[in-house]
Amino acid sequence: MAPSPIRIVGLDPGLRRTGWGVIEAIGTKLSFIACGTVLPPEDDDLAARLAYLHTELVRVISVHAPDEAAVEETFVNMNPASTLKLGQARGVVMLTPALAGVPVSEYAALLVKKTVVGAGRADKAQIRMMIKVLLPKADFTTDDAADALAVAVTHAQHRCMAQVKARFAEKVALKVAAR
Amino acid sequence: MAPSPIRIVGLDPGLRRTGWGVIEAIGTKLSFIACGTVLPPEDDDLAARLAYLHTELVRVISVHAPDEAAVEETFVNMNPASTLKLGQARGVVMLTPALAGVPVSEYAALLVKKTVVGAGRADKAQIRMMIKVLLPKADFTTDDAADALAVAVTHAQHRCMAQVKARFAEKVALKVAAR
Repeated sequence: MAPSPIRIVGLDPGLRRTGWGVIEAIGTKLSFIACGTVLPPEDDDLAARLAYLHTELVRVISVHAPDEAAVEETFVNMNPASTLKLGQARGVVMLTPALAGVPVSEYAALLVKKTVVGAGRADKAQIRMMIKVLLPKADFTTDDAADALAVAVTHAQHRCMAQVKARFAEKVALKVAAR
Repeated sequence: MAPSPIRIVGLDPGLRRTGWGVIEAIGTKLSFIACGTVLPPEDDDLAARLAYLHTELVRVISVHAPDEAAVEETFVNMNPASTLKLGQARGVVMLTPALAGVPVSEYAALLVKKTVVGAGRADKAQIRMMIKVLLPKADFTTDDAADALAVAVTHAQHRCMAQVKARFAEKVALKVAAR
């Protein structure tokens, strides 16, 4: 039985720029659907910027109808004020798919880099290059959109591995039961 | 002309506990309406906890119909992981009234303590005591709900002062124009 296609939206949260990228995965075969960057107006107050971010992501989810969402777990050395800002954007980015009934997974930035480039210390240029190799039609124009696609790719590969493991465990269980 | 009553919801964000408190202000006269604490289930994943928090605050806003919201700007010495968690809850707490068209103001924790107790280094017990003095009917059972009422009181006093200043500026402008 051929695996059914799954749409994944990857999200790279930030208050100034949030990247999003939608891919389709059929087993291990990936294809690019769309990507973009949300730029909440910097002159607005915080609540208005968060509302803008939410509204734009609601639009992305409604247009591209993802089955699953994956969010990057950034954890860099920032001052507490920047960490709080990132957290606020991240809260909205986690909430929006959840409210639409889309399950949300989280992936550490290190794991995303290891999955996509093969090294945890990969830089932005390496991620862009590998995304172009994995998804030749990807037309990202920002690092944020490329990062979002990288998170989506990471989720596709890890959910696929999880399914292989589950099928293997099921086979073992059936054999044990048949004894 | 008597000032018209204004309903204010104060919010003290946290991922484990978010306090909320609704008051009514007629000029400088304050009265207690309701308060409570939202406790997102700790066993759920992050996205589900944020969705729970959002849904409960939507209910509070729909039941008590506040005209304005005020959120505490906590800024304590926490590790980056705790700051990120607080940020995520805070993002949802700022977003929810904004989506309902309720304007959101932010107040530093220090200013809240100074306004309510008269000292920036006030402890939780002093805040609870002063909230009982200012709002005798307040039936809070948690520090979070008491803090949320303190933020609402702070907003009531500061918006009142802002109006007095605006009226004074208007009078001065009219006198200048009449010359």
